Amino acid sequence: MLPFNKLVNTKLFLFFTISLFISFSSIAQRAVDYVNPFIGTSNFGATNPGAIAPRGMVSVSPFNVAGKQNKHEKDSRWLSNPYVHENEFLTGFSHVNLSGVGCPDLGVIISMPTVGELEIDHLKYGTTYKDEIAKAGYYSTTLDKSNINVETTATTRTGVSRYTFPAGKANILLNLGLGLTNEQGAMIKVVSPTEIEGIRTVGGFCYYKPEETYPVYFVAQVNVESDEFGVWKKTRKESGVEAEWMGYNGKDRFYKNYYKEVMGDSIGGYFSYNFDKPTKVELKVGVSYVSIENARENLERETSNLTFLEIYHKTELEWNDLLSKISVEGGTKDDKTVFYTALYHTLIHPNTLNDYNGEYPKMSTRETLKTNGTRYTVFSLWDTYRNLHSLMSLVYPEQQLNMVNSMLDIYDESGWLPKWELNATETTTMVGDPAGIVLADTYLRGIRNFDIEKAYEAMVKSADQINNNPLRPGLKNYIEKGYLTSSDAGSVSTTQEYNISDFAIAQLAQVLGKKKDEERFRERSISYRNLFDKDYKLLRPKNNDGTWYSPFDPLAGANFTKNVGFIEGNSWQYSFMVSHDADYLIRLMGGKRAFTSQLQEVFDKGHFDMANEPDIAYPYLFNYVKGEEWRTQNMVNALRRSYFKNAPDGLPGNDDTGTMSAWIIYTMMGIYPVSPADPMYTLTTPVFDKITIELNPKFYKGRVLVIEKEGTGNINEVLLNGEEHKSYFINHFELVNGFRLKFLLE
Amino acid sequence: MLPFNKLVNTKLFLFFTISLFISFSSIAQRAVDYVNPFIGTSNFGATNPGAIAPRGMVSVSPFNVAGKQNKHEKDSRWLSNPYVHENEFLTGFSHVNLSGVGCPDLGVIISMPTVGELEIDHLKYGTTYKDEIAKAGYYSTTLDKSNINVETTATTRTGVSRYTFPAGKANILLNLGLGLTNEQGAMIKVVSPTEIEGIRTVGGFCYYKPEETYPVYFVAQVNVESDEFGVWKKTRKESGVEAEWMGYNGKDRFYKNYYKEVMGDSIGGYFSYNFDKPTKVELKVGVSYVSIENARENLERETSNLTFLEIYHKTELEWNDLLSKISVEGGTKDDKTVFYTALYHTLIHPNTLNDYNGEYPKMSTRETLKTNGTRYTVFSLWDTYRNLHSLMSLVYPEQQLNMVNSMLDIYDESGWLPKWELNATETTTMVGDPAGIVLADTYLRGIRNFDIEKAYEAMVKSADQINNNPLRPGLKNYIEKGYLTSSDAGSVSTTQEYNISDFAIAQLAQVLGKKKDEERFRERSISYRNLFDKDYKLLRPKNNDGTWYSPFDPLAGANFTKNVGFIEGNSWQYSFMVSHDADYLIRLMGGKRAFTSQLQEVFDKGHFDMANEPDIAYPYLFNYVKGEEWRTQNMVNALRRSYFKNAPDGLPGNDDTGTMSAWIIYTMMGIYPVSPADPMYTLTTPVFDKITIELNPKFYKGRVLVIEKEGTGNINEVLLNGEEHKSYFINHFELVNGFRLKFLLE
Repeated sequence: MLPFNKLVNTKLFLFFTISLFISFSSIAQRAVDYVNPFIGTSNFGATNPGAIAPRGMVSVSPFNVAGKQNKHEKDSRWLSNPYVHENEFLTGFSHVNLSGVGCPDLGVIISMPTVGELEIDHLKYGTTYKDEIAKAGYYSTTLDKSNINVETTATTRTGVSRYTFPAGKANILLNLGLGLTNEQGAMIKVVSPTEIEGIRTVGGFCYYKPEETYPVYFVAQVNVESDEFGVWKKTRKESGVEAEWMGYNGKDRFYKNYYKEVMGDSIGGYFSYNFDKPTKVELKVGVSYVSIENARENLERETSNLTFLEIYHKTELEWNDLLSKISVEGGTKDDKTVFYTALYHTLIHPNTLNDYNGEYPKMSTRETLKTNGTRYTVFSLWDTYRNLHSLMSLVYPEQQLNMVNSMLDIYDESGWLPKWELNATETTTMVGDPAGIVLADTYLRGIRNFDIEKAYEAMVKSADQINNNPLRPGLKNYIEKGYLTSSDAGSVSTTQEYNISDFAIAQLAQVLGKKKDEERFRERSISYRNLFDKDYKLLRPKNNDGTWYSPFDPLAGANFTKNVGFIEGNSWQYSFMVSHDADYLIRLMGGKRAFTSQLQEVFDKGHFDMANEPDIAYPYLFNYVKGEEWRTQNMVNALRRSYFKNAPDGLPGNDDTGTMSAWIIYTMMGIYPVSPADPMYTLTTPVFDKITIELNPKFYKGRVLVIEKEGTGNINEVLLNGEEHKSYFINHFELVNGFRLKFLLE
Repeated sequence: MLPFNKLVNTKLFLFFTISLFISFSSIAQRAVDYVNPFIGTSNFGATNPGAIAPRGMVSVSPFNVAGKQNKHEKDSRWLSNPYVHENEFLTGFSHVNLSGVGCPDLGVIISMPTVGELEIDHLKYGTTYKDEIAKAGYYSTTLDKSNINVETTATTRTGVSRYTFPAGKANILLNLGLGLTNEQGAMIKVVSPTEIEGIRTVGGFCYYKPEETYPVYFVAQVNVESDEFGVWKKTRKESGVEAEWMGYNGKDRFYKNYYKEVMGDSIGGYFSYNFDKPTKVELKVGVSYVSIENARENLERETSNLTFLEIYHKTELEWNDLLSKISVEGGTKDDKTVFYTALYHTLIHPNTLNDYNGEYPKMSTRETLKTNGTRYTVFSLWDTYRNLHSLMSLVYPEQQLNMVNSMLDIYDESGWLPKWELNATETTTMVGDPAGIVLADTYLRGIRNFDIEKAYEAMVKSADQINNNPLRPGLKNYIEKGYLTSSDAGSVSTTQEYNISDFAIAQLAQVLGKKKDEERFRERSISYRNLFDKDYKLLRPKNNDGTWYSPFDPLAGANFTKNVGFIEGNSWQYSFMVSHDADYLIRLMGGKRAFTSQLQEVFDKGHFDMANEPDIAYPYLFNYVKGEEWRTQNMVNALRRSYFKNAPDGLPGNDDTGTMSAWIIYTMMGIYPVSPADPMYTLTTPVFDKITIELNPKFYKGRVLVIEKEGTGNINEVLLNGEEHKSYFINHFELVNGFRLKFLLE
């Protein structure tokens, strides 16, 4: 038996050997090399280039949204991301961040290396920067003011930075005042000349529930002992007679070499150095939503004894493993970059909430619970039910199973399924009741080893409980009249969302043999028909008395302006959002020709919004009309080319925690899950010549799913396992049973 | 063997039996019954009537200094106490308080019972109050707004309150925003429906060292489970675009039934109830300067299983035990009340810093250390070296020994003896180098089982180290010229203080056989003579070049106005402060007659200030002139009668952590330690017919010291053990060897 140290070294040696082997044998060929984390960091994509591990609790993102020097400044406008590509003034690196969300939150525990005398005003220590590099699990830049090179990487729960300081005085700041969130309040305590621990308040996402703020705990360790350390505090200015005695009134306080807790609205800690030569310092920040002890355990279990580079290589391998579940051939380098970056973006949220030891905070009360699997968080379900979760079911079914179980845990803990869950708080952002759609969709795609009876019970509860129902406001009108009325918020949109949720219940009831429920919910799922105004061939709000809401402007509500009847969209952008009843919608619209013409008008007249969810399936709806499928292929390709690029503005808008990314992944593979809770895909021309998805044998019969194309134009013929497939729709199980899908193009 | 429960009950039964026996057998005769904690709560006495155990870390004081309704409001003027008797608007009960100090600090962890809906604005929940009762270890009042009766008591480290609520909605608030200190910053966390823990920042005493703030930890428990609990937070108002979305911007936040940490500059916690009948709730608040865990342990070790009344009776017994060390006969009830209340006030500070388990924070760095004895804190030594510590040596030598050891611990921890130590911070308030005087005085009075060599080393260090000496600024001038110069702060006062300190070193060197040092420091101890201006027959500042500072106004500097040469006093109030060289001063003044006349002028012309330390020994100085002792007796009696009363304004001014109280205790016993570090007393007419001090046999040969008087006028003859004692000075050892002192009056 080898002594433990030897064992570790041997393992590391093997690790590096393999790592180097992969690097040399497959330069620029690994999936991970195609990730460009800058995609989505402009044009309000709201992603960030910070280093993160797959579904990490922690990321280390450059923070460049504070200070009027920046074009997009966090306090001067609505801004929900810690980084904007065209901004130029950087004030640190935030350790907990959201990617592709619409409201500001987190963006705290901000570290910053500086040189010279200690300066704690971020507007003064902030700097321009250059030579940015971002990869999966890695970010680097050089700060102009100090000439410090900063590199960051991360494990699931620990952010790791490497600062290369010039000789001279140097400082590492941990600013707990600054943050993307508007929440204030922190505690900080120096544990030793190499360790600081603390707590920062976050929460209040979208400003809906100020009472749902909560602490994030951290432990920060440096690998070079500081010559000085301390804490600072920005104080409120006191007035009154005694204030005149306080020479320091309202001024910053400094506590040098001080080991006790400091609390306040705006505080921070620092390590200071006096380097006689250029020196690298590694900073590790372990995070937890349970306790400081857990943050420390997370850090130690995930990173102790490992250097920055070892950690980065480990995280990079994890990324490559996951991304390589899909391999592609053909297409340009940019195509591959767009594709793998999108896949990377779908692997950020939902992210890990539980600590290394399994502990996580219970919904709302935040009591400590324990999970055996992974407790996921950040369920932005109004977005992700449309495509992201079915993609996870297809490519990462183990993860999707864990997500479903997390949703059921949330039901157990709070009595309700999640709507927009964030770090164990229910933000109740957006409309509809999307969780059940994901549960049904997952089950119907063959991922069945979860408690489906509990899932069903939870879905029916939110569908039927009229009073005190946080998920379905307006349910009374919906059940009695079949629709919400103009006095309800977003009455048409919400009716449509409830229809889709009820369709999901019906679909599930069918396979569970619950006939009565199936009938009841199938009936409920088409009640949007009551809101179809034949004169406009569009959906239109109705008043309480059943009359049409007037005046009605089908264009009102675009670009996120407020509108009666619709949420984040107008009637054009919502009226076709009934894929589960597409055939009937075609009849309502006056038949196939009229439907096609009406749908084409959405695009021709510029009503279509690629940047928001209600209409993102629209380009696929031409497939419902035999002979018009070319329009889908043309439209999808046009949209792909104009909105998805290998560039910071390479997303059409907010990534919505990976929903836009899931759209482009499916689209580039030639399949799209056009009707959630219906386990099928509709087809379009794939971008790549060959796509191979490695299927998980625990869930699927097939070893791999292969999609190929021959030719370059529109689809001429589709072959399934070599046999002609006449439909533009294909069942999920035909794909995951190992059949080969081949597109013969013109 | 009895089972444990039985044992406890038996013990409690015995306890009550004894307690009742004492109560019934000695109604209004126990020493403790003469304590009136309202004395000193007006006329800037700066005491408070809060419940406290002897030398307690915790007291529970009514807090009535917030809100413009109050005549003396904490933010409208300089105010250093949580309670003023003539104020009328009460906003809670603070759990850590200082008694008789000159700068605001502590006055935090403020509890308040209220009725009705939760209201957290102290200006709204504050109230007038009535029926105040204060005793040693007990305070009670009834709140007008709510009709709640509040009673408080305390153990050494735990404050205990009993609230009698009417039926209906009720709340117990713990306000961590409000405080006497101007420091902000706290953390709070609800542990269960009956427990809240937290941290509050305090410190910055006298606004000298804002970096020397530190945390006080607490655990609060109620004995009735709350129906609701939570935390509130007062937020800073955000500005900017996003602020417009925050409907709650700048408004108070509430976190109901929330179990996680909340941090901020102004926060609080609460328990709420719905009582169907009038209900008593007991609140216990354990405190620590080390950790929350220690605060909890303090609470549990000192109070668990004990009810409010059991705790009060235990604390009352402790008080009575200590106060009964001196018993008095004769005198009026008011005389006894003034006497025992003064003794009570000398038993508040210095107070306990260490936790039940012995842990306490190290000076400055606040690392956790452990003591076997008691680590005392609040050493206001510029005040207390004059009389309080010699009183402790006489009556409570065990405590004084612990105090001396605490001072030596401070030396070990910080490299310097204390000057004005407060909760392990050195505030460096006031002038002089007083610690050594106390060390020498204690040793010279026979309390010798401490490390005198270390003490001596520490004293010499501060006397000789010219650079980086925090205790003796101006030392270079002092050593080279014999005095500080007008460019040094308080040059005359400080020279005098250093003289006394050097006298103490010489006195100690003498008994330690360090001849050379003795000579050197005895020489240094009389250097004030350089500042004696024969024209004025007063001390006068000198310039750097040795010339007199001009213009010189001997009256400038009275009433705490700023003045060149003198600190908190004028030349008249300082010129006689050389008891250790009184005979020579008499010669300097021009002989006995001139001296007497000059001293008498201090009183006749109103230069004397009974409210501050420099001149408090003046009335005893006539004893240095044979035949003029009657002046001392007359003057002392006149001062006693006009300044010391059984009334809120019954102290001449700030109690200075018991220094004024020690003055009146000595004075009423007929002895006064007129020259610190000289183990003797000078004599005056005692107030009581007979005074018996129970001596501690571990330290003194005598069992008791008895002082008696016969007659009513001035002193005719003094008998020591029945023999005539011709001097008006008496050696400490003559008294503590069990001799009887008898005054035969005219």
